[in-house]
Amino acid sequence: MGSKQFLSDNAAAVHPRLWEAMRAADEPDAPYDGDAISQELDARFTELFGRECAALWVATGTAANCLALSTMVQPHGGVVCHEEAHIEVDEGGAPGFYLHGAKLLLAGGEGAKITPDGIAAVIDPIRDDVHQVQPHAISLTQASEYGRCYRPEELAAIGALAKERGLALHVDGARFGNAVAFLGCSPAEAVGPAEALSFGFVKNGGMSAEAIVFFDPDLADVARYRRKRAGHLQSKGRYLAAQIVAMLENDLWLDNARAANAAAAEIASSCGGRLMHPVEANELFVRCTAEEREALRAQGFGFYDWGSDAARFVTAWNSDPEAASALAKAIAAL
Amino acid sequence: MGSKQFLSDNAAAVHPRLWEAMRAADEPDAPYDGDAISQELDARFTELFGRECAALWVATGTAANCLALSTMVQPHGGVVCHEEAHIEVDEGGAPGFYLHGAKLLLAGGEGAKITPDGIAAVIDPIRDDVHQVQPHAISLTQASEYGRCYRPEELAAIGALAKERGLALHVDGARFGNAVAFLGCSPAEAVGPAEALSFGFVKNGGMSAEAIVFFDPDLADVARYRRKRAGHLQSKGRYLAAQIVAMLENDLWLDNARAANAAAAEIASSCGGRLMHPVEANELFVRCTAEEREALRAQGFGFYDWGSDAARFVTAWNSDPEAASALAKAIAAL
Amino acid sequence: MGSKQFLSDNAAAVHPRLWEAMRAADEPDAPYDGDAISQELDARFTELFGRECAALWVATGTAANCLALSTMVQPHGGVVCHEEAHIEVDEGGAPGFYLHGAKLLLAGGEGAKITPDGIAAVIDPIRDDVHQVQPHAISLTQASEYGRCYRPEELAAIGALAKERGLALHVDGARFGNAVAFLGCSPAEAVGPAEALSFGFVKNGGMSAEAIVFFDPDLADVARYRRKRAGHLQSKGRYLAAQIVAMLENDLWLDNARAANAAAAEIASSCGGRLMHPVEANELFVRCTAEEREALRAQGFGFYDWGSDAARFVTAWNSDPEAASALAKAIAAL
Amino acid sequence: MGSKQFLSDNAAAVHPRLWEAMRAADEPDAPYDGDAISQELDARFTELFGRECAALWVATGTAANCLALSTMVQPHGGVVCHEEAHIEVDEGGAPGFYLHGAKLLLAGGEGAKITPDGIAAVIDPIRDDVHQVQPHAISLTQASEYGRCYRPEELAAIGALAKERGLALHVDGARFGNAVAFLGCSPAEAVGPAEALSFGFVKNGGMSAEAIVFFDPDLADVARYRRKRAGHLQSKGRYLAAQIVAMLENDLWLDNARAANAAAAEIASSCGGRLMHPVEANELFVRCTAEEREALRAQGFGFYDWGSDAARFVTAWNSDPEAASALAKAIAAL
Repeated sequence: MGSKQFLSDNAAAVHPRLWEAMRAADEPDAPYDGDAISQELDARFTELFGRECAALWVATGTAANCLALSTMVQPHGGVVCHEEAHIEVDEGGAPGFYLHGAKLLLAGGEGAKITPDGIAAVIDPIRDDVHQVQPHAISLTQASEYGRCYRPEELAAIGALAKERGLALHVDGARFGNAVAFLGCSPAEAVGPAEALSFGFVKNGGMSAEAIVFFDPDLADVARYRRKRAGHLQSKGRYLAAQIVAMLENDLWLDNARAANAAAAEIASSCGGRLMHPVEANELFVRCTAEEREALRAQGFGFYDWGSDAARFVTAWNSDPEAASALAKAIAAL
Repeated sequence: MGSKQFLSDNAAAVHPRLWEAMRAADEPDAPYDGDAISQELDARFTELFGRECAALWVATGTAANCLALSTMVQPHGGVVCHEEAHIEVDEGGAPGFYLHGAKLLLAGGEGAKITPDGIAAVIDPIRDDVHQVQPHAISLTQASEYGRCYRPEELAAIGALAKERGLALHVDGARFGNAVAFLGCSPAEAVGPAEALSFGFVKNGGMSAEAIVFFDPDLADVARYRRKRAGHLQSKGRYLAAQIVAMLENDLWLDNARAANAAAAEIASSCGGRLMHPVEANELFVRCTAEEREALRAQGFGFYDWGSDAARFVTAWNSDPEAASALAKAIAAL
Repeated sequence: MGSKQFLSDNAAAVHPRLWEAMRAADEPDAPYDGDAISQELDARFTELFGRECAALWVATGTAANCLALSTMVQPHGGVVCHEEAHIEVDEGGAPGFYLHGAKLLLAGGEGAKITPDGIAAVIDPIRDDVHQVQPHAISLTQASEYGRCYRPEELAAIGALAKERGLALHVDGARFGNAVAFLGCSPAEAVGPAEALSFGFVKNGGMSAEAIVFFDPDLADVARYRRKRAGHLQSKGRYLAAQIVAMLENDLWLDNARAANAAAAEIASSCGGRLMHPVEANELFVRCTAEEREALRAQGFGFYDWGSDAARFVTAWNSDPEAASALAKAIAAL
Repeated sequence: MGSKQFLSDNAAAVHPRLWEAMRAADEPDAPYDGDAISQELDARFTELFGRECAALWVATGTAANCLALSTMVQPHGGVVCHEEAHIEVDEGGAPGFYLHGAKLLLAGGEGAKITPDGIAAVIDPIRDDVHQVQPHAISLTQASEYGRCYRPEELAAIGALAKERGLALHVDGARFGNAVAFLGCSPAEAVGPAEALSFGFVKNGGMSAEAIVFFDPDLADVARYRRKRAGHLQSKGRYLAAQIVAMLENDLWLDNARAANAAAAEIASSCGGRLMHPVEANELFVRCTAEEREALRAQGFGFYDWGSDAARFVTAWNSDPEAASALAKAIAAL
């Protein structure tokens, strides 16, 4: 039996096909994003999403999110997001840096998902008045920070509200592959009417490459300047582009995500009422006591405590199915 | 005969030993910089420099320079640097971003090297007055943007001035290896009394890892927050740390730099009065007409025009010695 | 009977003695803050607070608050404040601008007052981890946004917590005079162990001058650069300094505040259970229906709606006592 | 004989008609810029310039310049200005703050005036490349920092270049009145095809009010948010508006400027070859030795040294004609 680690997907090994692709990129080519592989990205994502895309690689999801938003939000504006959104709670203040002090305007919502009503509850009380920070954009996470997926109709409703209020829409897709795998829809349906998507690969078998996919090419033009200005334009960018192209090739990204989701589903099948959230991606939040967690750890399972009464398990593209089954049984036996 | 490309060192292939080290890092470990290899960096650099160091990996030289400076310069301050410094002319305004609008105060100096006199000429006229931006730090590039090296005594003199005026000192070492190889001194002597060094590896056979080496650990503590905030804390940081450790192992960085310098010296040997700058690292700035450049390109050599009357040749860790000899002959024959 | 306006104190007339002082300053003197009156401020506030002070004039409370905080908080840090603090809800994102993207960390607390427990509830869950914004300072408002005053012992407790956690303490004293008048203590007791106070005069009969009083002179040195950089160093600063000195002369600031408080107390005396908050300064938040508000307006009284079920009345230094009595009677008769 | 002070116009007394206007504004009105006088500004400037204007008051020229530019320049862009422009040398880094790190791109030019050729020399070498900061706007000073005036045809030429290159145009008019008085043209002709003008009043007899006049109302909409965010929205804004309206009433601004210019011309008439710059406004830069300066000071004249070989004299709206004549004679007698 393989690894019993379910700590996180963000430290998993790199997929062999990405290693091959990176090695194949070892031949010298133009620096920065002038190489042949980087130049291929726009077309690849255009094909994937069925509409014109302009795509930039960056090394982290934080950079992807913040650069994307920096093209949509003026420094005196704000971004509506969930109060448990990654940009709010887990990026070390990066939005404040990249957006030059623009503000995050926090909405509630079950499962870390925002809703049209929740958004309206935040922005409706804001007078069009210079004393109050005005919303310029909305950001949502697909799948959410609790592994919950927005259905296409939910995205359409949020997009309609955004359009009505003149707000841009950004999707943080750190686990976008897991969402598409769960929803069983097209990538286009899973992103909805957004202006930009942070398409995550690192948590899905990548090494160091995420894509910012812009559905509005004018925003990409701004992002290219901002990426360099943020020190994120790597000179050997072809190694990042190679990872992304390898991921898109034959839908490796989707296969990897399906594998992670399957392992999560296997574990979930035994959790019953212990689940704090329905499992719609590759994260499980499971109620259990400190003693129960100790018992699981004694069996070799690795995971994080989630507060004092729960545990978080995250599966990855290379989670061992037997280990997932073993964990499922161990939880059932608690 | 191998590649006749002398365009730049920043797009060269990755050294095989770095590939090995990265593959060896494929085992899961703690995310971010919590992994064993990242945790090793402080000790490695402490050993190399013979004094206490705290080191952080980042993906680019621009990020390294700007994060280092962000620990030394308040937003209302300024950084004295050469008017042709990389931070001034080639980083897309990144210092303005990372330093929150602090100003670069530009000094002259032959060969893109600053001098105590040149620095004094910039800062002496600045009244201690709120109407004028006050200097907080000095940044110099070792080797300089024209491939010139600061001698240890030059660094000591600049360091003494910095100390006298209460300014911090930063060294941009994008080609630090080439400088150490040329100077034949210790790394400590080649960096002088600086608070921080951007130690470049990407131009020297790396893929995506530079080190910010802090000689003042308090600054490193600030830099760690700033790195995350800038989206430069990669979750699989062990792949960056692995590159750096492989570079330090058995002084691979120095061997690589020596190879590049040797190729440059070979070419330089035939350039005579054409050289715009003495060749002290791996860059050559060679006076030649458009027709001469055409003739060289017709022979398969790759390089950049440098204005209308010169060419820039850059050698790399893997420059082919035969190609360098061939280029030397071709220049001699012009 | 005089004006029946109780809309706000921030648009009231300027006190005659300030007009006299400004006219007396019409003689040319050194520009900026080099004039004799500006130079007098440190000594005046040192005398008032009984400890060494360094004071800067600025034109607005927003500038005072944000400049003060900019000396205490790094761009990657945060400021703990009440979720209804003026800096959070009413300054158009100015803290994000002045603090270069630092974050406001929001605490609850009755009457818009923060407490040690409330502060701890915010900062205790913050891991010392680069993924989370770390607190650098605390800001509280004396009197609070609901006209509530911190008692000296409450300030001491918050100050002790701040010291224990290594946080600086800032007091927004937009209505500091009203607080001192209510508390009947010394100014020093009313500000507690803070590093800086935004001492408001505009709402208290001033025209365009607030003071930032630093109890740590090193912070004032930084603030002077930041004030110029923010475009707040007026060239004819003597007219601002003159307002402040006139206010301090014979405790005019305290007399003005007492007059405003007295008018508020008179109105409060008839409000009984309608009061949403005890009246400890010059603001009244009074439950009343839309019909009741209409009835009051029909009698000529001016005030703002406070949501749908209440009204806000604010008295000023020149509120007419008869009008206050009339309003009290009118409310009693509702 | 009156004051022999020719130190600066920025500390002169306030014109009596402005005092009257401010006192007349003492009646309560809506706070911020909601009062009747502030609301009048757009129409007043529209009338003065003969095209649609939107105008905002602020307290300082630095704030006016930087707020105006903040509506035209993205944080990753740059502003072309003269290397001796006030925004570059004398605003304590305010542009870096307000423009979030955007860069000033410095052009030469005689008398601190930029020219189409000088601008082209700065921007033509900038590749459209993310490594280099791209120009977004041009800023010029009318009258220049050496008291030189741009002729309407010079403004038209710069404006044509700006339009051709897609750059916005800003005019720093700290001494705009002096320029109009000298040029004898209309205000519209003296500002040329700019998007915004910082219309200075403080140096021309005002106390604390400058106007940002936007010829593009969309930019004004942005500036209003930025003004609040910068802490420049004073609550009793009517006192600033009153100053401006009083200045515009019966062209007081022009009368004041003419008086200052006349005094400067009187002094200039005796300076002959000593003048470093033609006198086209109210500043004189006069070559003279330290001994000569001492001699003038011994006669009671006040002025600043300008380097070691010259003196700067500045006249003001209230410069005493007899004192100007006396100074002229004293210089002639040197």
